[in-house]
Amino acid sequence: MIRPWQKLDSTILHDYRIFRARQDRSRSPRTGKDHTFYVLEAADWVNVIPLTPEGKVVMVHQYRHGTETVTLEVPGGIVDEEDGDPGVSAARELREETGYEAAAVISIGRVAPNPAFLNNTCHSYLALDARRVTTPAFDGAEDIAVEEVALADIPGLIQDGVITHALTIAAFYHLERYQEARAAAGEPAGSS
Amino acid sequence: MIRPWQKLDSTILHDYRIFRARQDRSRSPRTGKDHTFYVLEAADWVNVIPLTPEGKVVMVHQYRHGTETVTLEVPGGIVDEEDGDPGVSAARELREETGYEAAAVISIGRVAPNPAFLNNTCHSYLALDARRVTTPAFDGAEDIAVEEVALADIPGLIQDGVITHALTIAAFYHLERYQEARAAAGEPAGSS
Repeated sequence: MIRPWQKLDSTILHDYRIFRARQDRSRSPRTGKDHTFYVLEAADWVNVIPLTPEGKVVMVHQYRHGTETVTLEVPGGIVDEEDGDPGVSAARELREETGYEAAAVISIGRVAPNPAFLNNTCHSYLALDARRVTTPAFDGAEDIAVEEVALADIPGLIQDGVITHALTIAAFYHLERYQEARAAAGEPAGSS
Repeated sequence: MIRPWQKLDSTILHDYRIFRARQDRSRSPRTGKDHTFYVLEAADWVNVIPLTPEGKVVMVHQYRHGTETVTLEVPGGIVDEEDGDPGVSAARELREETGYEAAAVISIGRVAPNPAFLNNTCHSYLALDARRVTTPAFDGAEDIAVEEVALADIPGLIQDGVITHALTIAAFYHLERYQEARAAAGEPAGSS
C-alpha cells in the first residue's frame, strides 16, 4: 500500500506564462526523510479528434518550439477560465486552429500529461460531423496548415513516427476504446 | 507548407534537476515578428511494458508529486548517459523499480512527451519473459508497490481512468500496433 507524502512547504519559483515552477519540500512516509520536488503548475489542456462526414480526421501541421520541428497533431490547447467547460475549449480550439465546426463534441477520456511533475489534466474529445465554416484565426505566434487525414491511416502514421505527440496518441487510444464500446453496444461508431 | 522559425537568442534561465528552463527569442517566418518561448530541456525518457510468461504486465504503484496522487504505471525513468542506449535504461529501470529481469527488450516506438515545450523523446519498450529475480532497489525518494495486471485488463483500466499517465497509454498504443504487425506476419505476439 503506497501512502501519500506529507507536503511540508511549497514555494512558487518562476512564472513561464504557460506554467509556473514550484518547489515542494515533502516527507517520505516510508523513510520519514524530507526531499525536494519540482512541480509545474499548468492550466488543464484539451485536444480534439475532429471527424468529417467523410471519415477524415482534421489535423494540423505546426512548428513546435520544444522539439524545433514541424509536427502533425490534432487540434488542442489550453482550457481558458472563461470557457467554463473543457468541451467548450475543444470546440474553440478546433474553430481557431482549423476554421472547422462540429455538430457534436463528445468527451472520450482524460489523461495526466506527466504526473511526475505536471499537476494538470488533458481532456480528449471527439468532434463529429466537422465541417469547414470559416478561416482559422491564428494568434501572432501561430502558423498552422490544416490537413484531412483518413482515420484508417492514423495507426500507420503513429507507427512510422510521423505523428509523435504523446497527447495526440493518447487521444487516439481513447478513441479506439470509445468506438469499440459503441460497436459492442450495436451503435454506429460515427453517430452522436 | 509550414516553415521553421529562426532562433535569434536562447538563454538557460533555471535548473530544476530533471529539466532546465530555457527562454528562446524566435522570429515567425509568417509575420517576421519576434516572440518569446519557454522550453524545458530534459534528458530522454524510457518506459517499458514488461510481460510475464503468464501474459501479465508488471506495473508499479507510486506516489507522484505532480498530481499528488498514487498512480498505476509501467516502469520507466530517465536515460542516463552511462546507459549508452535507451534499451539499456529500460532494462535498468525495470530491475530497479520492480526487481524483474526480462529475456528480451524490444523497441516498440518513440513519442514526443510534449513538442510544444519539451525538447526530449520518450522511448517505449516491450520486455518479454519478465521474471522476478531480486528485490527492487529504491532510491531515497522512491516508494513503489509492484502489481501484475492481466494484459487484457489494460484497456478497461485506461478507459476507467485508473491508468492515467499519457506516456504509459502511448506505450500501450504502440504495443497494440506492434502486436498487430506480428500477428499479420504470422508470428505469435509474445515471442521475441
